[in-house]
Amino acid sequence: MTRVGILNVTGYAGAELARLLYLHPEVRLTSITGRTAAGKPLADVFPHLAPLGLRVDAELGDVDFVFSALPHAASAEAIASIVEAGLPVVDISADFRLRDPSEYEVWYGQPHPIPSLLSQAAYGLTELNRPAVAGSRLIANPGCYPAGALLALAPAVAAGVIAPDIIIDAKSGVSGAGRSLGLTHHYAEANEGVSAYGLEGHRHLPEMVQELARIWPRGETSSSDASGSSISDGRQSPRLTFIPHLVPMTRGILTTCYAELISDRLSDASAAKAQVCEIYHSFYQNEPFVRIVDEPPSTKHTWGNNLCLIYPTVDLRTERLVVVSVIDNLVKGAAGQAIQNMNLLLGLPEPTGLDFPAVYP
Amino acid sequence: MTRVGILNVTGYAGAELARLLYLHPEVRLTSITGRTAAGKPLADVFPHLAPLGLRVDAELGDVDFVFSALPHAASAEAIASIVEAGLPVVDISADFRLRDPSEYEVWYGQPHPIPSLLSQAAYGLTELNRPAVAGSRLIANPGCYPAGALLALAPAVAAGVIAPDIIIDAKSGVSGAGRSLGLTHHYAEANEGVSAYGLEGHRHLPEMVQELARIWPRGETSSSDASGSSISDGRQSPRLTFIPHLVPMTRGILTTCYAELISDRLSDASAAKAQVCEIYHSFYQNEPFVRIVDEPPSTKHTWGNNLCLIYPTVDLRTERLVVVSVIDNLVKGAAGQAIQNMNLLLGLPEPTGLDFPAVYP
Amino acid sequence: MTRVGILNVTGYAGAELARLLYLHPEVRLTSITGRTAAGKPLADVFPHLAPLGLRVDAELGDVDFVFSALPHAASAEAIASIVEAGLPVVDISADFRLRDPSEYEVWYGQPHPIPSLLSQAAYGLTELNRPAVAGSRLIANPGCYPAGALLALAPAVAAGVIAPDIIIDAKSGVSGAGRSLGLTHHYAEANEGVSAYGLEGHRHLPEMVQELARIWPRGETSSSDASGSSISDGRQSPRLTFIPHLVPMTRGILTTCYAELISDRLSDASAAKAQVCEIYHSFYQNEPFVRIVDEPPSTKHTWGNNLCLIYPTVDLRTERLVVVSVIDNLVKGAAGQAIQNMNLLLGLPEPTGLDFPAVYP
Amino acid sequence: MTRVGILNVTGYAGAELARLLYLHPEVRLTSITGRTAAGKPLADVFPHLAPLGLRVDAELGDVDFVFSALPHAASAEAIASIVEAGLPVVDISADFRLRDPSEYEVWYGQPHPIPSLLSQAAYGLTELNRPAVAGSRLIANPGCYPAGALLALAPAVAAGVIAPDIIIDAKSGVSGAGRSLGLTHHYAEANEGVSAYGLEGHRHLPEMVQELARIWPRGETSSSDASGSSISDGRQSPRLTFIPHLVPMTRGILTTCYAELISDRLSDASAAKAQVCEIYHSFYQNEPFVRIVDEPPSTKHTWGNNLCLIYPTVDLRTERLVVVSVIDNLVKGAAGQAIQNMNLLLGLPEPTGLDFPAVYP
Repeated sequence: MTRVGILNVTGYAGAELARLLYLHPEVRLTSITGRTAAGKPLADVFPHLAPLGLRVDAELGDVDFVFSALPHAASAEAIASIVEAGLPVVDISADFRLRDPSEYEVWYGQPHPIPSLLSQAAYGLTELNRPAVAGSRLIANPGCYPAGALLALAPAVAAGVIAPDIIIDAKSGVSGAGRSLGLTHHYAEANEGVSAYGLEGHRHLPEMVQELARIWPRGETSSSDASGSSISDGRQSPRLTFIPHLVPMTRGILTTCYAELISDRLSDASAAKAQVCEIYHSFYQNEPFVRIVDEPPSTKHTWGNNLCLIYPTVDLRTERLVVVSVIDNLVKGAAGQAIQNMNLLLGLPEPTGLDFPAVYP
Repeated sequence: MTRVGILNVTGYAGAELARLLYLHPEVRLTSITGRTAAGKPLADVFPHLAPLGLRVDAELGDVDFVFSALPHAASAEAIASIVEAGLPVVDISADFRLRDPSEYEVWYGQPHPIPSLLSQAAYGLTELNRPAVAGSRLIANPGCYPAGALLALAPAVAAGVIAPDIIIDAKSGVSGAGRSLGLTHHYAEANEGVSAYGLEGHRHLPEMVQELARIWPRGETSSSDASGSSISDGRQSPRLTFIPHLVPMTRGILTTCYAELISDRLSDASAAKAQVCEIYHSFYQNEPFVRIVDEPPSTKHTWGNNLCLIYPTVDLRTERLVVVSVIDNLVKGAAGQAIQNMNLLLGLPEPTGLDFPAVYP
Repeated sequence: MTRVGILNVTGYAGAELARLLYLHPEVRLTSITGRTAAGKPLADVFPHLAPLGLRVDAELGDVDFVFSALPHAASAEAIASIVEAGLPVVDISADFRLRDPSEYEVWYGQPHPIPSLLSQAAYGLTELNRPAVAGSRLIANPGCYPAGALLALAPAVAAGVIAPDIIIDAKSGVSGAGRSLGLTHHYAEANEGVSAYGLEGHRHLPEMVQELARIWPRGETSSSDASGSSISDGRQSPRLTFIPHLVPMTRGILTTCYAELISDRLSDASAAKAQVCEIYHSFYQNEPFVRIVDEPPSTKHTWGNNLCLIYPTVDLRTERLVVVSVIDNLVKGAAGQAIQNMNLLLGLPEPTGLDFPAVYP
Repeated sequence: MTRVGILNVTGYAGAELARLLYLHPEVRLTSITGRTAAGKPLADVFPHLAPLGLRVDAELGDVDFVFSALPHAASAEAIASIVEAGLPVVDISADFRLRDPSEYEVWYGQPHPIPSLLSQAAYGLTELNRPAVAGSRLIANPGCYPAGALLALAPAVAAGVIAPDIIIDAKSGVSGAGRSLGLTHHYAEANEGVSAYGLEGHRHLPEMVQELARIWPRGETSSSDASGSSISDGRQSPRLTFIPHLVPMTRGILTTCYAELISDRLSDASAAKAQVCEIYHSFYQNEPFVRIVDEPPSTKHTWGNNLCLIYPTVDLRTERLVVVSVIDNLVKGAAGQAIQNMNLLLGLPEPTGLDFPAVYP
């Protein structure tokens, strides 16, 4: 049985990995690390993980597969030697998501720690990048916001039915901000309040732009191109505005995406919605973790599991595409996606250990 | 002292009116009605209103000023004779918001009950329509979503700096759905979940379109007009997409508005944000209930009071205007706005009885 | 593989049974019923159960094991013929919990529908009644409050260290009230509020009294007996006061129990806590679903799983026993307990299909 | 107009004082201090207090009345010179609540900073200690838990109808823990969870014991005295067990009190409830901020105001008194109570500036 280790189990992503790996029939979590908690039973840090019977160590033991839930920069540094040793790694940090190290420096405020590894990394949103993931040993697990937004937009982008002007309005639960302390996460300050943040530019934006550009149809010029989207080497770059919001709940991200439909790609407006739904159903028809739904979903419908529910529709008055997606930010937006990638790398069916309903209500 | 009555005190808007009127130094709430609760002490319906010492009656007593918190259609019917009797009325229902009765029929599924009164009604978003409100005896209090969205967009629209393509993504607490029962408002179903609704068209949309069109600069043709916004009699009609979302909190609406800036109306991009802020500050400089803020606000900052906080900014990467506004849906979005209108009609300073901080945390 | 059916899958207990049975490796949920939803896909009623691919039927199909999640009275009536047909049944309703039909009539306001079956029923709190459950075909699954309270009190009662004066103060999430609609479950009314209810006597009280009396040491007379607890046939009946409270969360029950320690059964006060802890550890040492914990637990530590965490302590100033227990009301308090009982009846290890950590945070 | 100052406005009690003083017609908040925020506009610390237009200073300005919201020990030290200067002070910290400095040292882990002032202090639960408050210049404002518990128990204690064995089970919102950061107040950890804390003894316990002992009828020996309550100088000391719980809400404390009724003080059991209610109604008949209610109250019914609602009842099966009280921990449990005390000291009617309904829902 494959022995699995987690670097930095003491944050929410690490703890969720541990929870989910306990359910996995084909691998065994055997080693977990954490800096401040080293030496303690995991149950002291997370009582709900007492059934695992593990102790937090300072260093990773002998394992066959590694997840890193370290903060960015620290993660790349810790991973480098593991990758060189030939072990497969899924990195939940942001370190290997952006292919261009200069973009990394812009958004993370420091030079990339190990740029030489970037070329080996595959962006791990499995549904959109399966062959690359399967062929890599270093998987950059997507950010939670990009996971929800890219799955929501990919079918429309790939089908060439939307113009590059895109608005992504995302609503996240508080666990997305991690376990670190801060006034904005204090219960009394977060409860009964919604707020927008990251209005000057959120770090998940370049990741969305990069991945949407990758799947954007080549050489196309949309009819609304007059609005000025940049084009380079025959490929449009989407003009994304992304605004995340903090809502008073623990888990979940709902992403609402808005884009102009390119009318000449669709038949008359009245049929546009059906046509769009067909595009979405077809795009994800074989995906075990993406479901196109008939009613607007609640984040609650994915609470605790690895599903992404997508509701595509068309605002007939304005001929805009509106797509709503929901995920659990700690599962499909982090730990579940990471295990899905692990399954792919290990040659297991992707749903192995991840096939369970959401907890509701 | 002006004697005030409330038709249908038993919903959330009616109860909030009662609460706020208790704080008002210049008027006295003397009569309240409610159908199922007629004959009961108000304290039996709402224990927090016990200090008012009022009884719910079947019919309105002798008053000088009337608020109607009846459902639509019922409200128009109940108001008609009151208006004819010459009493000033603020109607919190939707009945007199849309000037065109055919629009009313489209959105409310029935002919307007009293179309003859429509011409006497003024749309009661005081900040944007003060002269009309002051000159009317029948005030159509705005819907909660339009209140937040219109205040957020009006300065940019009036200044002519945005194109008519507008996205309004709103997040509301559950009290916005009223006190009626339904699975979507059941605690166990609403808690820990965010969802979008009204995707086929929400009734507050035509109200927003109507009021934005009213203040839209005449005869203008924006540079992004190629995108197809309709123009009639020299006045553009905004192409609004409005998607409301339900978030797990009791009170509050946060509205995020997205629009294309018309670049030739602004100097270079780097100065655009300052220019936009100046437009907003200037537009609301004398308004007691609107504050332009320097940090993205939380709905919690207006919990229980009549303020609207607005944070305008510019996404420099895409040159889009992004405006975030927050209100308490039951106060600035309903009862507080209604009392502000009453103050204007009675010749009182608008803040009378409404000048208190939010309850925080 | 054992085919399992659920009568009335459309409430929270029924839905939770369906969710948990999907995880069970040895049985297969093949038939589900529901009155208003008959004919619909289960996914229409509960989107999170879409992966089960089941349809709600009017009548139960051919199964080997039945769970009834019907309301009381209806449940007994539906179960009668199933029991007679020899099928094992776990009844989640209250119908077979009280052995004395006259008590049933007092608390449920109607004569027991099928009193002849009462003698066949075993009270299904497995940890306290394992032999009886194993030998029965009709299991009365405990109420959610009794589950948490009885597990918290049983070791002290069985050890004879507490006097019969007992206070049980329980705090429950809103899902305990079921999926039916009512103002007290309306999000806006339940959120940000705690209240006590059932102060005139809650239906779970007689169940607690009955089961505590059953395990109360025979023939004992405690030193504080002067306080007047009733004694019959050498067995004391506890003098229970039970007050449930509604707290603004979806799942979970925390039960705080207070009782006078019988001082001559314990060594000096300073050692009392250690002695009590030893009693508790020893009592539950082989139980897979009960853990005695060193720190006061949160209901969150059992969110979604079948554990009961118990923290026993002694208030040294007053020599009172204080015991805090936490469960998930829908799992250990309903569906998980029911599956634990099924496992026992089917000769499977009790943790089969129930061995997973809580979802946290 | 009386000029008022607040020492340490930057915590929740200080901010709530500022909010409430803004509503007060007879005093004016003119000076506020805060250590880390000195020099900043109050609006930077608390955006909801922007309407006050105040700046946080390092030192208190020239004022006529002082509230201290400093932490314990720091408060006594800061207050000493103010008291000596003859200014009236309401101290929200714990420093002057316990009359016995050795008790202070036991519970607060350090010698009392200014024991010489203790004899001048009056315990400021106005309803129970009005003459002493009116005659003092140094008011020790009660802790939030004692406020709710003492008001709930005082009528029964004073009437001599309960034995000294008392259980106080309290449920508090998270704001009670203050604005300091900690994992237990992190939204993701506190939400959807209830837990007990302070099981080894909470600092509010000695305050409750002291004040209940003060009003306990002299020279009485109850019939249940065999249970061992200590008696000294003819006055019983209650045997209190107090367990606080943290519930996922921002504001509010619900306190459930349990005590044995002394049966010979009441007529037959069936009339006990009416007799108890009469005792409570009579005790608080002239109190503006205490209401005896007919239905079990929710903390929500006092959200944001200074009321204490009390529901006394009798568990007829066990002849126990059960009393439920609700308050807003930041108002009647802190800032509102403090202003009530100020009003009394200034010779104003106690409801001045505090007469407004709760915010509901």
